[in-house]
Amino acid sequence: MCQLLGMNCATPTDITFSFTGFAARGGLTDRHADGFGIAFYERRGARCFIDSAPSSDSPIADLIKRYPIKSRNVIAHIRKATAGVVELENCHPFMRERWGRHWLFAHNGDLLDFDPPLRGDHLPIGQTDSERAFCYLLERLNGRFGLREPDNDALFEAVAEVTAELTVFGIFNFLLSNGRCLIAHGSTRLYHLTRQWPFTQAHLVDADVSVNFADVTTPDDCVSVIATLPLTDNEQWQAFATGELIQFVEGRVHARRIVPIPEAAQQRNRANMSVL
Amino acid sequence: MCQLLGMNCATPTDITFSFTGFAARGGLTDRHADGFGIAFYERRGARCFIDSAPSSDSPIADLIKRYPIKSRNVIAHIRKATAGVVELENCHPFMRERWGRHWLFAHNGDLLDFDPPLRGDHLPIGQTDSERAFCYLLERLNGRFGLREPDNDALFEAVAEVTAELTVFGIFNFLLSNGRCLIAHGSTRLYHLTRQWPFTQAHLVDADVSVNFADVTTPDDCVSVIATLPLTDNEQWQAFATGELIQFVEGRVHARRIVPIPEAAQQRNRANMSVL
Repeated sequence: MCQLLGMNCATPTDITFSFTGFAARGGLTDRHADGFGIAFYERRGARCFIDSAPSSDSPIADLIKRYPIKSRNVIAHIRKATAGVVELENCHPFMRERWGRHWLFAHNGDLLDFDPPLRGDHLPIGQTDSERAFCYLLERLNGRFGLREPDNDALFEAVAEVTAELTVFGIFNFLLSNGRCLIAHGSTRLYHLTRQWPFTQAHLVDADVSVNFADVTTPDDCVSVIATLPLTDNEQWQAFATGELIQFVEGRVHARRIVPIPEAAQQRNRANMSVL
Repeated sequence: MCQLLGMNCATPTDITFSFTGFAARGGLTDRHADGFGIAFYERRGARCFIDSAPSSDSPIADLIKRYPIKSRNVIAHIRKATAGVVELENCHPFMRERWGRHWLFAHNGDLLDFDPPLRGDHLPIGQTDSERAFCYLLERLNGRFGLREPDNDALFEAVAEVTAELTVFGIFNFLLSNGRCLIAHGSTRLYHLTRQWPFTQAHLVDADVSVNFADVTTPDDCVSVIATLPLTDNEQWQAFATGELIQFVEGRVHARRIVPIPEAAQQRNRANMSVL
């Protein structure tokens, strides 16, 4: 299984604090050592850093920890391979272009026997069920919206619909962004937290590092962080309800709903979580 | 104007030597200081490092110089902005997926008044004529090949055809790769060099650095390097003929031809080169 980290902000913010704790789980404080990736939106641009080395000792992860890239949407992933070889082509996040924007996707879970026919608009490059799900999702969005780019609300509706289809296949915690919003789905395990004025101090779970956000923020800042497991031990992280889909815009929860997961799939997910 | 660097190899090879000289031109030995990018294929995967900081003092360029990523196809670019703001979204190489492969493209030149209608399969994210040309090229390949991925020979034919259309609009030196071959077009200025057994010593133009390739290679190695201007001062770089299109496969020239450029366009290109 893998772990996810996402950030959605009102103003460009650097993620070095959260990433420092998260990256430690890639081989140091946890066993997700089969590669990692982190992608940042900057204006309309995006850059995606991936490595098949563990995030705890990758020179690229080290750069990210030292080089404060300011972004309003970030998606990161550390991998414990369950499907697909340990190669760059299977590292999340996956990136595609649609409607003249970068789309990024990272997944934690396993979709069993998920192999739908794809039209060819977007095809997987690697072998993971995750990238296949991303291509399928984009193809469905294309089919629904054609050449007209969806706004945040229409996008949320459409993603909820496709999510309902896919959760039947297995564990489907994911993060998706187009640079304007970040959509997160908690199928089995995902937490979120919104930091806003008045900011306080936070202390990492995975490293003895603290930051006093009051020293590095302004009242305009507002940041939501989403993670597979809480990254700090002195803040109130909220667990996603089973099947909860949340859209974050400008650092805050913009829309949320429960996408029902059939009881049989929930049972299978619980059994699969216990062996992963 | 910008500068290009490409590498196509028989076996995975690191580009740190060539990139060290090339990166110096991004603000140190030359004035191409408006961002840079370098992308590496590794198996089916690819990773693209871009930065809007000058390559001569970017922490990301510094990482690339120190972290020997082995790849069979590399495309790099340093930018002197002529169209589009100095932002990440305008940094080359540009990347898109088609036929389940990453496609990478970098351009040196200016296509004047090039603004064709695009169907929407691939749309520009930034504002450059270069990204527009790349999207147009991919759209034309889609139109020609549909769902059937072209082989190297069919791809070369198709790219030659689209190149002939685009060279009418202005200076169009470019590098294109799908991870299987690298296609380079010399519209006004581009050089190439093939290193193979028996390997010798090479010395950079832009830094007092030498490498004896005989120490770090095997007889199976074969590497072609393509650059806007020769990177070493003791090897025989070959200039592309005006309009020459060359496809490199497994480190060697696989196909080449002259794509004729109308005399009026050549005259305009010469005038534009002198002011850039």
